[in-house]
Amino acid sequence: MQEVGKLNVNGKRLWQSLMDLASVGATPAGGNCRLALTTLDGEARDLVVKWMKEAGLEVRVDQIGNIFGRRSGRNPSLGSIATGSHIDTQPTGGRFDGCYGVMAGLEVMRTLQDHNIQTDAPMEVVVWTNEEGSRFTPGMMGSGVVAGKVALDEALAATDASGQSVASALKEIGYDGSSKVGQHAFHRYLEAHIEQGPILEAENRIIGAVAGTLGIRWYDVSVTGMEAHAGPTPMAVRRDALFAATHIMQAVVRIALDHAPHGRGTVGDVQVFPSSRNVIPGRVAFTVDMRHADETVLAKMADSFSAICREVADGTLTNARMKVEVSEALSVPPTPFSPSLMAAIAQRADARGYPWQEIVSGAGHDALHISSVCPTAMIFVPCKDGVSHNEIEDAKPEHLEAGANVLLDVMLQQAVPVL
Amino acid sequence: MQEVGKLNVNGKRLWQSLMDLASVGATPAGGNCRLALTTLDGEARDLVVKWMKEAGLEVRVDQIGNIFGRRSGRNPSLGSIATGSHIDTQPTGGRFDGCYGVMAGLEVMRTLQDHNIQTDAPMEVVVWTNEEGSRFTPGMMGSGVVAGKVALDEALAATDASGQSVASALKEIGYDGSSKVGQHAFHRYLEAHIEQGPILEAENRIIGAVAGTLGIRWYDVSVTGMEAHAGPTPMAVRRDALFAATHIMQAVVRIALDHAPHGRGTVGDVQVFPSSRNVIPGRVAFTVDMRHADETVLAKMADSFSAICREVADGTLTNARMKVEVSEALSVPPTPFSPSLMAAIAQRADARGYPWQEIVSGAGHDALHISSVCPTAMIFVPCKDGVSHNEIEDAKPEHLEAGANVLLDVMLQQAVPVL
Repeated sequence: MQEVGKLNVNGKRLWQSLMDLASVGATPAGGNCRLALTTLDGEARDLVVKWMKEAGLEVRVDQIGNIFGRRSGRNPSLGSIATGSHIDTQPTGGRFDGCYGVMAGLEVMRTLQDHNIQTDAPMEVVVWTNEEGSRFTPGMMGSGVVAGKVALDEALAATDASGQSVASALKEIGYDGSSKVGQHAFHRYLEAHIEQGPILEAENRIIGAVAGTLGIRWYDVSVTGMEAHAGPTPMAVRRDALFAATHIMQAVVRIALDHAPHGRGTVGDVQVFPSSRNVIPGRVAFTVDMRHADETVLAKMADSFSAICREVADGTLTNARMKVEVSEALSVPPTPFSPSLMAAIAQRADARGYPWQEIVSGAGHDALHISSVCPTAMIFVPCKDGVSHNEIEDAKPEHLEAGANVLLDVMLQQAVPVL
Repeated sequence: MQEVGKLNVNGKRLWQSLMDLASVGATPAGGNCRLALTTLDGEARDLVVKWMKEAGLEVRVDQIGNIFGRRSGRNPSLGSIATGSHIDTQPTGGRFDGCYGVMAGLEVMRTLQDHNIQTDAPMEVVVWTNEEGSRFTPGMMGSGVVAGKVALDEALAATDASGQSVASALKEIGYDGSSKVGQHAFHRYLEAHIEQGPILEAENRIIGAVAGTLGIRWYDVSVTGMEAHAGPTPMAVRRDALFAATHIMQAVVRIALDHAPHGRGTVGDVQVFPSSRNVIPGRVAFTVDMRHADETVLAKMADSFSAICREVADGTLTNARMKVEVSEALSVPPTPFSPSLMAAIAQRADARGYPWQEIVSGAGHDALHISSVCPTAMIFVPCKDGVSHNEIEDAKPEHLEAGANVLLDVMLQQAVPVL
C-alpha cells in the first residue's frame, strides 16, 4: 500500500469545483439557496453527474434520487468503499455544508484517475437526497431510506408546503431513478464535512476524527400558572408561569454543564402568553434540546430534567403550584462510529502532519444512518467561527484540501491499491 | 350632619342600572366591548345622560367629551364634591370596571333626590373620556386633560388604528362638548371602583380605603449573545442570550419579593430570536414592570435591577459576556391619596359595620390624575377572583351597594347637608 500518502488531491481543483457548484443557487449574501429537489437542486445534480462521468465514474440513480458515482475495482464481488454527503442546502445556507463531502469524494476519484490507480474494491461517491429537511420532512431522507430507517413509499409521499410530493419533484428534475434502493452493498462509508461548530478552530486543529454523534432528546414543555394584572396582584398570591418556567430553562443549561464536555442543553423556542407588558404570564411554552455522547448519561440528564419539572409543578422551587406538561418530541440514541476507521483517520492525519483531535458530532449527518449499514466514520475540517446554516458559512481552502487528502488516504487503504 | 349614615342607596336600582348599561355592547361571554367614542360608547353615554337628567342633574360636556352631571348646592361659590369614573371598556372587558364608579355616583345623586336632600356645596358625577386607552393613546385621557397632564389639542389629535381622530370620533357621537376644559373647580374627588386584584376577597373585606397608587417603572430590555447550533456548540463556548436573560427575569421577581407587600415585579412580554428548537438564542427582548408605593423604595428596586443587568452583561452571573440594553419606557411616581378622605372612608365603613382595610391601587385610574387637582380618594370593592379586563369580571350586588353607601356618606359629609 505504498501509494497511500504519496498521492495528493488537487486543492485548487477542489476549491474551484466547490465555487462552481455554489454558483447554482447563489445568494447575494454569498451563500446558497438550493432546497432539495428544486430546479436549482436539479441543475446542481446535473453538474455533479457531468463531473462524475468526466472522472470515469459509472453513474446510477436510485428510487429515492440518491446519485451513486462508481469506480470499478479489480474484484467486483467486494462491497464498495463509499463516501459522499449532500448538495441540497438550507434556505439561507452556505457553500460548504454537504457540498464539501461530495466534492471531496469527487476529488478523490479525480486524483485516482489522474494517477491511473486501480483498487481491489470498487469505490463510490454518493449524493444523498434531501439531507437538510428544509423542504421535505424528514431530513437525511436518502440515507435514511437506504439504511431502512425511513420507508421508501413514505419518503416518496412526503409533501412540501405547496403540497408537491417527493416523487413528483424527483420526476420533475429527472432524478426518479430506477436503481433499487440498497442494491449495492457498502463495505465502508466515510464522510468529510465542515465541523459546523467552533472546536477545531479554537483548538487550532485541521482534522477532526469523529468518534460518533451525540444522542438527542427533544421535549415540548408547557408551564401553566394564572394570568393576572401586573399592578393589582401582590407577589405572594401570583402564579407567574414565566418565573416558574425560567427555573426549568436554567436547569436545562446547568444539567448540560454538569455533564461536560459532551453534554448539551438548549432552550431554543419560547412562547409567552398573553405576552403583554402589564400582564403576569399565564402560560409559557418552550422547547428543550438535550444531547450527550453516552446514552446512560443522556438518560441521567433526562431524569434530572424531569425532577426539576416536578419541583416546579409542586411549587417547591417557586412557592406556587404550576401545571407542567412535558412531551418527548424526539429521541435519538448516541451513535458511535467505527473505532478502526477513526484510528485510520487519526493515523493518516498524523502521517501528513495535520494537527487533529477526536471530536463528537453534535449535529446529524447522512453518516449517522449509514453507520447502521456498514462501518462508518467522518472527517471534520474547521469552519470559520463555527458558523453554519448561514450564508456567511466559510472554510479555508487549505483545510478543505487537508481533509480531502485524509479521505483519499483512508479510502485508498480500505480499497487496497493494486500494485 | 345627622343625615350621614341615615340614608342608604338603593342597591337593587344600582345593580339594575349596571346591567342596563352592560346591555349596550354586551358580548356573548357575558362581558362588554364598548371602546371609547364608538357608536356603542355614544349609546351608553346617551343612556347615562338621560339618567343624570332624570336625577335632576344639570348636564354639560367639555371639549374632550367628559360628561358632568351637576347637582346645585346652596352656596354656588363652593367647589363641587365630585365623583365618577369611565364607561368605555377593554375590547373584551367586563361590566364593572369604570361603570361601577359612574353608576355608584349616579345612585348617590338619585338617593339625595329621593330624600330631597340639599347640600351646601354642589355635587357632581363625571364620566371621564377614554380611560382604557384601548382605542386611543393615552388612556386616562379625559381626566388627564382636566388635570393638565395631557394637552387638549394633542388628545383631540390622537388617532385610532384606522386613522380616525378623537376630535372626529367625539363629533360623530355628538360629544364634542363646548364647556371649556377645567371650567368648574372640584373641591373633593372620590372614585368608587372594583379592586381589580385579589386582596379584599382573600381578606374577607368589603371596603378598601385606597391609600394611593403604586409608582410604576417600565423598561424594555434586550440581551444579545451569540446565535449558534444547539448540537455542535459546546456549553463552555456558548453565549446563550436566553440563559443570561432568565437571570434578569428572575431578579425582577425577587427584587419585588424583597420589598413586600407593596413591591411588584413582572416580566410580561418576551421575544426570543430566532426561536428555533435547535438554535441557541442569539437575542432575547423582554419588558419589565416594577411598581411600589414609595418612590424611594422604587428607586432602590430600579438600582437593584440595573445592578443585575450589569452582572449579566459582564458575565459575572453566567460566565458569558452579553450586550444588555435597557431603556425606560415609562416612569410614574407613586401617588398618595388624601389621608383625611381615606380616614373618612374608613370611619364610615366602620360605622356601617363593613369590614374594611387600607389598600394600595396597583393600576392607574382617573383619580390618579384628579389627585393633582384636589384632595382625592378611592373606594374599592372586591371583584371575583381578582379578575378584571376580562369578560368574566364579576362582583357581588351587596358589595357594590356597600361601596355606594360609603361613597354617599363621605360625599354628603363633604358637601354638608343643609338641615
